[in-house]
Amino acid sequence: MCGIAGYVGKNQAKPFLLSGLEKLEYRGYDSAGICIADETGLKSCKAKGRLSELVEKSKNMDLSGTTGIGHTRWATHGAPTEYNAHPHFSNDGNFAIVHNGIIENYLDLKAFLAEKGFTFASDTDTEVIPQLMQYYYNGNVFDTFLTVVSKLEGAYALGLVSTYEPNTLYATRKDSPLIAGLGKGENYIASDIPAILSETKDVYLLEQGEFAIVTADEIKIVDQDKNPIDKKIFEVNWDVSAAEKEGYDFFMMKEIMEQPKAILDTIHPRIKGNEIVLDELSLDKSYFKGLNKVHIIACGSAYHVGLVGKNIIEGIARVDTQVDLASEFRYRNPVINDGDLAIIISQSGETSDTLAALRYAKQHNAKIISIVNVRGSSIARESDDVLYTNAGPEIAVATTKAYSTQMEVLFLLGLYIAEIKGKITQEERAELVDELLSIPEKVKGQLSDIEYLETLGKKFKDVEDVFFIGRGIDYSIAMEGSLKLKEISYIHSEAYAAGELKHGTISLIEDGTLVVALATQDQLFEKMLSNIKEVKARGAYVIGVAQEGNTAIEKEADYVIYVPKTKGCFAGALEVIPLQVFAYFISLHKGLDVDKPRNLAKSVTVE
Amino acid sequence: MCGIAGYVGKNQAKPFLLSGLEKLEYRGYDSAGICIADETGLKSCKAKGRLSELVEKSKNMDLSGTTGIGHTRWATHGAPTEYNAHPHFSNDGNFAIVHNGIIENYLDLKAFLAEKGFTFASDTDTEVIPQLMQYYYNGNVFDTFLTVVSKLEGAYALGLVSTYEPNTLYATRKDSPLIAGLGKGENYIASDIPAILSETKDVYLLEQGEFAIVTADEIKIVDQDKNPIDKKIFEVNWDVSAAEKEGYDFFMMKEIMEQPKAILDTIHPRIKGNEIVLDELSLDKSYFKGLNKVHIIACGSAYHVGLVGKNIIEGIARVDTQVDLASEFRYRNPVINDGDLAIIISQSGETSDTLAALRYAKQHNAKIISIVNVRGSSIARESDDVLYTNAGPEIAVATTKAYSTQMEVLFLLGLYIAEIKGKITQEERAELVDELLSIPEKVKGQLSDIEYLETLGKKFKDVEDVFFIGRGIDYSIAMEGSLKLKEISYIHSEAYAAGELKHGTISLIEDGTLVVALATQDQLFEKMLSNIKEVKARGAYVIGVAQEGNTAIEKEADYVIYVPKTKGCFAGALEVIPLQVFAYFISLHKGLDVDKPRNLAKSVTVE
Repeated sequence: MCGIAGYVGKNQAKPFLLSGLEKLEYRGYDSAGICIADETGLKSCKAKGRLSELVEKSKNMDLSGTTGIGHTRWATHGAPTEYNAHPHFSNDGNFAIVHNGIIENYLDLKAFLAEKGFTFASDTDTEVIPQLMQYYYNGNVFDTFLTVVSKLEGAYALGLVSTYEPNTLYATRKDSPLIAGLGKGENYIASDIPAILSETKDVYLLEQGEFAIVTADEIKIVDQDKNPIDKKIFEVNWDVSAAEKEGYDFFMMKEIMEQPKAILDTIHPRIKGNEIVLDELSLDKSYFKGLNKVHIIACGSAYHVGLVGKNIIEGIARVDTQVDLASEFRYRNPVINDGDLAIIISQSGETSDTLAALRYAKQHNAKIISIVNVRGSSIARESDDVLYTNAGPEIAVATTKAYSTQMEVLFLLGLYIAEIKGKITQEERAELVDELLSIPEKVKGQLSDIEYLETLGKKFKDVEDVFFIGRGIDYSIAMEGSLKLKEISYIHSEAYAAGELKHGTISLIEDGTLVVALATQDQLFEKMLSNIKEVKARGAYVIGVAQEGNTAIEKEADYVIYVPKTKGCFAGALEVIPLQVFAYFISLHKGLDVDKPRNLAKSVTVE
Repeated sequence: MCGIAGYVGKNQAKPFLLSGLEKLEYRGYDSAGICIADETGLKSCKAKGRLSELVEKSKNMDLSGTTGIGHTRWATHGAPTEYNAHPHFSNDGNFAIVHNGIIENYLDLKAFLAEKGFTFASDTDTEVIPQLMQYYYNGNVFDTFLTVVSKLEGAYALGLVSTYEPNTLYATRKDSPLIAGLGKGENYIASDIPAILSETKDVYLLEQGEFAIVTADEIKIVDQDKNPIDKKIFEVNWDVSAAEKEGYDFFMMKEIMEQPKAILDTIHPRIKGNEIVLDELSLDKSYFKGLNKVHIIACGSAYHVGLVGKNIIEGIARVDTQVDLASEFRYRNPVINDGDLAIIISQSGETSDTLAALRYAKQHNAKIISIVNVRGSSIARESDDVLYTNAGPEIAVATTKAYSTQMEVLFLLGLYIAEIKGKITQEERAELVDELLSIPEKVKGQLSDIEYLETLGKKFKDVEDVFFIGRGIDYSIAMEGSLKLKEISYIHSEAYAAGELKHGTISLIEDGTLVVALATQDQLFEKMLSNIKEVKARGAYVIGVAQEGNTAIEKEADYVIYVPKTKGCFAGALEVIPLQVFAYFISLHKGLDVDKPRNLAKSVTVE
C-alpha cells in the first residue's frame, strides 16, 4: 500500500505531485505529504486524512521548486498522524525519503542510529532510511544511497531527494512496485501508471534491485554495482479517460457498468469458432494432459474467484485442486510436486503475499500461470505464463470488473484443461462455450434495470448484521457478496455454507437479521429452501437469489432477486452482479465514500 | 435435532417422559409436548419454549396412563409455536406421532391427503404421518405403520401410539438416531442414551430400517418384512453422574474442567512406551505407507479440528489433505481415488450431513476412519475403523472436551502416518509423543487459575463485534474461538487469517472493536505483531495470545493471555482452552443460558 510520486523538470514540481498522488489515492489515504528540494533546503507539507486536506493546507505555503517527491499513506507501523506521514527527513534536514513497503529490520537499525545520537520524529519504520543517509553520507549522494539500501531488509519502493543534488531524484525498488515516466524536459516516478497517464504514456517498469537516477533530461537505470541497464520503453495502451469517472458518482459504479465489455474483451479473443484457444500459454497440451494437481493462490476477492475455479478444475476437469490464501500458503508447508500447476490471481499483479507465494511455488518446481490485470506487473513478469484479464484500469478499492474477468479466465482455463483431459467432449465444450459467450449480454441485461436493487439497498442500509448463505458455487459467491458489502458499508457481514449455519452461527439470527440466501443451483435448490425456512423460523428477513423461473422461492423469501438462467457452473458470473450493485447502493445511501473505504487500500503491497 | 422419548410399562408414563425429555433438551428446545394413550383416547399437552414451560403447564392436567410419547423440538419446517409442537395427531384422534428428521416428500403427501379431505393443524412436515396412518388404517396398527413408512422419503426417527392398541408403542428410524431401553416390566425409546440412563443401562441401538414393537414386557425388533432380528444388548458404560452437573452452574464449565482427564483418557491407551499404538485399526501399516490422499470431513467445531489435522497430515506426514465441510463435500463432485482415506469427525456420530458424506466417500471406494465420541453411533457403525474419543458424554451444546479430544486423536493419527511414511524419525516421534503426553498437565495448569479470563469476559461482555485473527494453526484455532464465542454469547464474531484482514474486513475496525490476536507460532510471531499494529492503528482493542516468554507482545496488545510453551504443531491444544473459558464467562455475565443457546441443538440430525 502507499503511493509514491516524484518529479524533476523544467516546471514547478508541486502541481504534478498533488495530481499524481490524487490518482494514487486508491493505494492509501490515511495521510499524505510532499517535499520540494532546492539548494536552500527542503520545503515540505504534510496532512493527516485524505489528500484533499493536503491540497488545502499546501495552498498558501511556499513550496516552489522543480524537484520533489510525494506520498499518500496506508498506515502499517504507527498510527495515521501528521508526524507519521511521509516524506521523512534526516536530522540535519538534507535528505527526504518516501517509502512504500515495510523495512523488517528497522528496529535494529533504529537502535543502531539511536546509539549514534539520532533522534526520531515518527513511529515509522521508514524514518531510519534518511537518517542512515545522513550517517553514511560521504560526499556522493548516489553512492551513499547504494550503501544504505544494502542495509535494508524487507520490501520497499523508495524515492530520495537531497539538498546536495537538488536537481536529481533517486529511486529503487524491491518487492514493491515503481515505475519511471519519460516526459520532455521533465521526468517522473510513481507507484503506478494512473499517476502519470495524463503526462506521458512512455514508462520504464523498474525490476527488482534496479536504481533510477532521474534528472530533467534523462532517466538512467543502473544495477547495484552501477552497471547501466538497457531498459525497453513500455508503452501504456490505456486511454486517459479509462482513469476518469465519466459522469458516474463513483468509480465503482462505472466499473460495475463496464463489466459486459470487460468480460467480452476477456473471453472473446480466446475463442475461435467455439474452440478455446489460449495462444498466450507456453505450457503445451501434453503438460495439461499429465497434470495431477493444481494450487490456486490468491487474496481477498481473487481468493473467492479461486474457489469458483476449483468447482471447474476439480469438479469438471477432475484435477485435484487446493485453493490457498496467499498469506497462509507458504507457511503451511504444502505438498507441491514437480510439475504441479500454480494458478496465481491478482488484479494489480503486485499483491505482496501473492507474489511471495508465487516465488515459493516456483522454488518448489511448480509451473506458474498467473491471472493478472496490470500488464508488466511483478506477478506477470515472474510467471511462466500470464492470462491477462482485459478489464482496463480498476480504480475503486472494491473490485468488480477485475473479479468478474478473473472468473471468466478460470472458466476458460478449466474447460480447456477438461477437454484436453478428455473429461468433456468437443460437443459439451462447444455447448459450454456458447453459454460462456452469452454471459456479457446477460450481464448487460441485468445492469439495464437496477432500480429494485437500489430500493433494497435503501431499505436495508441501516442493518447491523448480515449473513450470506449458499451451497456449492453459491457459497463462493456468498463470500464475495459478503466481502463487497462489508468493505464499503462497514456492516458486519459474514458468509456461511448454508448447511453450516446450524452448527453455531444460527444462534445470531434474531428478529430482523438480514439473510441473503443464494439458491441458483438446481440440484441444491430444495435444500436451500429448507435452510431459508430455518432462518425464517428464527425471525430473519430473507433476500433470496434464484435463477429466473424458480418462483418457488417467493413463498419462502421476503424479497427475491432473479438472475438469468445459465449452466450451473457459470451461475456465479451472473449472481455476483446484483450483489455488487446491492452493496454499492447501501454504501451510497449511507453517504460513505464508496470508492475509498476507510482503512483500505487497493493494491496490498505489504504482508 | 429434536429429541424423542417413549414409555410403556407398569407405571405412569408422564414422569419418565418429562425427565427423559429434560435430558434430551440439548437436542432442541423451541417447544415440547407429550401424549398419553389409553382406550378412551389420546391425552396430550404441548407448550412453546423450554421444557420447563411444559412441566408447568402439564402439572394440573389429566395425563394419566402407562403408554406415552414425548418430543422436544428444534424447528425446521414451521415456526416454533404450540401448534407446530409434537406430538401430531390424525384427524380422527386415533394416532399420535413424534418425529425427528425431515420428510422430504411431505408436500406431495400433504397434497394427496388434502385431496382426500384431510385438514392440517400445523405447518410441519411431520403431520402427514399420523394422517397417513388414519388413511391407510386396515385394522392392524403395525401393518399400517409399515405401509406408511414405506411412503416416506427423507430422514426420520418415529414413535407412534394409538387408541387401538394403547399398550404398545411402535418405533423406527432411518438416518436419525433412536435407541430402545430395556427395563423390568417397563421399556423405553429415546433419541439418545442420557434420557434413559437413570432407568437402565441395557439398550438396543436401532439400525437403519429396523422397527421396534415395544410393550411393558418386551421389545421385539423386526425388519420391514416383519422378520425378527436378533439384537445384541449394548451395555452403556457411563455413570449416571456423567450426565449431571456436579455443582457447576453449567455443563459447559464442567466439561471444560474435564478436559485434562478427557485428553489423558484419549491419548494414554494409545501410547506404549513412547510408541503410538493404534490397535483399533484394521487398516494396516502397508495401507498407510501407500496412502496418497486424505479427505477430512466434518461440520462446525469438528471441521475446525480437521483444519488443525491438515497441518499435521499434510504439513508433517506430507500426504495431500483436503478438509471439507460435510454439507458441501458430496455436492462438489470431489476427486476421490480408490483407497483414499476419509477421516470423518463427529462427537455424536449422528450428524446427518457428516453421515451422508461418509456414505458418499465409501461409495467412491475411500477407506473410512471415523473419530467419534458416542460408541455405537451410526457413523461409528458404518466406518471401516473408529478411533473413539474418550471424552464421556458431552451435554453442553457448545463443544469443548469433544473438540479437544478429537484434536488429540488427529495428532496421534498424523504422527502415526508420518512415522510409517518415514517423514519423521523414531527419535522425532518419541520427542513429539513426550510432548503430547505433557498436554493434560499443561491444560490442568491453565484451568487452575481462570480469574483473569473472567475479568476479561466481564470487561468485554457488551462488545458488538469481535475479530479473531491468526496465521497457520492459530488461524484454525481462531475459527474455533470465534465460533465458541458467537454461539453462546450472540456476539457477531468472525475469524480471519491475519494476512487477509487488509483485503476488505479491516474496514470494519474502528475505535473500540475487539480483536483477539493469536500468535503462538514462533516463525509467524513477528508477522502477527505487524498485523496487531495494523488494527491498533485503526483503533482496535487487542487481546493477544502468545506462548509464555514471548513478552514482546505486551508492547503491542492491550491485554495478553499466555499459554504454556509446547511444540508449534500442538499449540492449538493449549490455545483453545482460554478461548473456551473467555466465551463461557462472556455468556455467563450476559446472563444467558450457556448450555442451551437459542436456536441451536447439539446433535444436528437434519441437513
